[in-house]
Amino acid sequence: MRNETKMRQSGCPVAFGLDTFGDRWSLLVVREIMLRGKTTYSDFQGIEEGIATNILADRLKHLAAEGIIAKHRDPDNRRSYIYSLTEKGRDLAKVMIEIILWSSRHDQRPQAMREVVDKIKQDRPEFETGIRSG
Amino acid sequence: MRNETKMRQSGCPVAFGLDTFGDRWSLLVVREIMLRGKTTYSDFQGIEEGIATNILADRLKHLAAEGIIAKHRDPDNRRSYIYSLTEKGRDLAKVMIEIILWSSRHDQRPQAMREVVDKIKQDRPEFETGIRSG
Repeated sequence: MRNETKMRQSGCPVAFGLDTFGDRWSLLVVREIMLRGKTTYSDFQGIEEGIATNILADRLKHLAAEGIIAKHRDPDNRRSYIYSLTEKGRDLAKVMIEIILWSSRHDQRPQAMREVVDKIKQDRPEFETGIRSG
Repeated sequence: MRNETKMRQSGCPVAFGLDTFGDRWSLLVVREIMLRGKTTYSDFQGIEEGIATNILADRLKHLAAEGIIAKHRDPDNRRSYIYSLTEKGRDLAKVMIEIILWSSRHDQRPQAMREVVDKIKQDRPEFETGIRSG
């Protein structure tokens, strides 16, 4: 994330978006919370694409600094933290949906998240409301 | 782009999309072609966010291998190449629009591409048709 500040300085909204969430691992963390209800560091460590722990820690820090996720102590276990999407993070729902739909049009393989694609196609507004509300 | 194959292997459409175009520089190259009508290597070298030539060469190769862009000899100058978006690349229009709109909602600074945001808000279908047709 070294060129971050420079990229954003152009003032272009594409660059701003990419600076904020446009890192492959960052968006997979958002996917885990938004679509799979994951909330803890160890949940994210189990991410099926396999994320290195230093990258995970870096991306969680980055996403929190950007106001995309919030980190709170787990009331049931004061040693743990719970991560959740902020309003700004939930507002990525439309970007996430368009990425999923694009992939469903261009990835010819059977998909692990076929049911998500079907749900979006059946009732997109309902799906979006669902993932926004968390 | 080292973890590329691994990420995509999960079969998840989010991971597939991120493998294909979800690299900050890759999407900025798509932006240059889609929104700014840029077509040549030297055009891309002038990208305002400042791209290193080895990264640019790598991303152009990657985007061509993924079928997002096509590379043809310039008929007016047989030593040069012209880059364009394929149908699969133009189909990123909706993803690009959602990134722009998200940023317009969350970036408080005056924006370099304010007129693009205004155009999208005024008539999104027309804007999308325009950038799809190139």
